[in-house]
Amino acid sequence: MSVLVVGSVALDSVETPFGKADEVLGGSATFFSASASHLTPVQLVGVVGHDYPMDRLRALADRGVDLAGLQRDEGLSFRWRGRYRHDLNAAETLETHLGVFSHFRPQIPEQFRSAPFVFLANIDPRLQLDVLSQVDRPRLVACDTMNFWIESRRPELLQLLERVDLITLNDAEARQLTEQSNLVRAARWIMDRGPSHVIIKKGEHGAFMFTRDSIFFAPAYPLESVFDPTGAGDSFAGGFMGYLTAHADEIDDVHLRRAMAYGTAVASYNVEGFGTERVARLTAGEISDRVAELARITHFEDAPIELRA
Amino acid sequence: MSVLVVGSVALDSVETPFGKADEVLGGSATFFSASASHLTPVQLVGVVGHDYPMDRLRALADRGVDLAGLQRDEGLSFRWRGRYRHDLNAAETLETHLGVFSHFRPQIPEQFRSAPFVFLANIDPRLQLDVLSQVDRPRLVACDTMNFWIESRRPELLQLLERVDLITLNDAEARQLTEQSNLVRAARWIMDRGPSHVIIKKGEHGAFMFTRDSIFFAPAYPLESVFDPTGAGDSFAGGFMGYLTAHADEIDDVHLRRAMAYGTAVASYNVEGFGTERVARLTAGEISDRVAELARITHFEDAPIELRA
Repeated sequence: MSVLVVGSVALDSVETPFGKADEVLGGSATFFSASASHLTPVQLVGVVGHDYPMDRLRALADRGVDLAGLQRDEGLSFRWRGRYRHDLNAAETLETHLGVFSHFRPQIPEQFRSAPFVFLANIDPRLQLDVLSQVDRPRLVACDTMNFWIESRRPELLQLLERVDLITLNDAEARQLTEQSNLVRAARWIMDRGPSHVIIKKGEHGAFMFTRDSIFFAPAYPLESVFDPTGAGDSFAGGFMGYLTAHADEIDDVHLRRAMAYGTAVASYNVEGFGTERVARLTAGEISDRVAELARITHFEDAPIELRA
Repeated sequence: MSVLVVGSVALDSVETPFGKADEVLGGSATFFSASASHLTPVQLVGVVGHDYPMDRLRALADRGVDLAGLQRDEGLSFRWRGRYRHDLNAAETLETHLGVFSHFRPQIPEQFRSAPFVFLANIDPRLQLDVLSQVDRPRLVACDTMNFWIESRRPELLQLLERVDLITLNDAEARQLTEQSNLVRAARWIMDRGPSHVIIKKGEHGAFMFTRDSIFFAPAYPLESVFDPTGAGDSFAGGFMGYLTAHADEIDDVHLRRAMAYGTAVASYNVEGFGTERVARLTAGEISDRVAELARITHFEDAPIELRA
C-alpha cells in the first residue's frame, strides 16, 4: 500500500554552526518521501524546473518513491537559502526563490488517485483542497500548514480542516491558528473544526498527538549533536505516515502511538546531516534501535503507593 | 523517614494574566515542604522575620512539616513581587526584599542532623556546603541552584557538586553552568563533576533525569489552565524527594523514574493556584490520578516491524 505526498521539491543551501551545504535536496515532499520510503512505497507529486539535478533523485526512486507525479516545468527550481545560529530551533531565511513552485498546480496521475493514505504537505490550502478533489476517498488524509497560510488563506484552511483526518503543525502555528495560547485548548479548537487527530510539534521539545479522548506525547530523541534541523517536521510526518500506511489494516491507538515513535526516530536521523543524506542511508536496525530507546526513555511503572494526603 | 529541606520561606505577591495575590506563602523551602509532605514527613530549616504570619504555616505543621528549624530573626521577612505576562515561563521580578534572608545562616537542629534525605534548595552554595558539614552522612543529598550563584559563586558551586548525589536545575542554568548548549552534553559535564543524577527541568516542556547509563524524560502534565507557575520547580523537587524518602529502602531506577512522575504530578497542581493553596488541599486520589495519566500519555508498545530499509 502506498502513501501519496504532495508538496515542494527544492534545492536548499544551509549554514549551521557546524557546517555549510550548497544546493542539497530539500522541500517538504522530498524530506517526507526519503523518510516514509523506509516504511512503505511512496507516490510523490511536485514540481521542479528544467535545471533540477534529476539524477540526484535516483536514490529516492531506487527506494520505492514513484516520481511519475513530479512535473518538470520551464523555469528555475525552488531554491531556499537559510542559516541557523546558536538556537537551532529558529531558521533565518536568507533567500527564497520560488521559481516554478510559484505556479505549482498539482496534477495527480491516474494511477495515484486511489492512494489510501494522503499527506498534503505545506502548500497553499487552495491547492491542498484541489488535490482532495482529484483523489478517490482515501482512508486517511493528513495535512501540514504554516504561518503564511494561516494568515493569508484562513477561510480556505478552515475549509480544509473539515476534510482532513489529521493535521500536523508546530506549537507557534497552533497558537496562531486558534488564538489559544494553551496547547490543550488549541488542539480541541482544531478538533472541533474537523480533524480527529491533531499533532502539535514542538521541535526539540517533542510532539503531542491529541485525539478527542486521549493525549499522547513523544519527546524528541535526545541527541548530542543536531547538525541541521531543516526538514525535521516533514521527516517526522514521513516516518509517521509511512508507519501507518504499512499497517493500513490495523490502525488504532496502539499503532498511532507507535507511528509517533517512528516519526520521531526518523526525524532524529534527519537532523544529523544536511538535506536527506543521513536519512537516505538509514538501516532498519538504526530506526528500530531509536524507537526502542524512545520507549525506554519515557517508561515508568506506575504502582499504587501509600499517600499521606 | 524524613526529608530535610533548607531554603527560603517568603511572602510572594504575584500578578498573572488570570489574577493577583498579595503576600501568599512562598519561598523554595515552603513550596518543597507543602509538596513533599503529601508523601513523607519533612524537616524544614529556614528563616523568617518577626513580621511573618506564623499562623499561616500551621497547615504545614499539621501535615507533618517539623518547623523546629525555622528561625525567627529580628527584621523583615523575605518578600518577592513578580509578574507573569503572556509567557508563563518567564517571571518578571518587580521587587525583591531579602530582609532577614540576606543574613541567613542555617542552623540544623540536633534532631534533624541524622536526616537520611537532604534537599539543599536554591541558596548560596557556601551555605549549602555549610549545611552538609552539619549533617551526618545522609543517604541521598540533592541540591538546586540558580543563575545568580552560577555566576557569582562558581568555585563553591563546583565544590558542592562533588558532594551531592543529585542536582536539579533548569535548562538555561544547565547551559550557563556547563557552557554546553546541548543538554545531553551538559548533563554529562555535570556528572563528570560529581552527581550521579542530573535533573534538567524545562518548565512546560517537562524534565529529563540523566544518569551515567540512562535517560528518563517526563513531560509536564498537560494542563488547560496554568494559573501561577511560581514554585513549580520546588514543588517538583518536593514530590520527587518526598516519594524517594517514602521508599528509602528500595531506591533504584524504577523508583527514581516513578519519583519523577510524582514530582511532575504535584507540580502540576501547584501551578493551578497561587502560592501553596492548591497543593495544600491535595488528596491522595488526585496525585495518583495524574501519575497514572502521565504513564498513559507517554506509553507506547514497541514491537518489531518489517522495515524496507
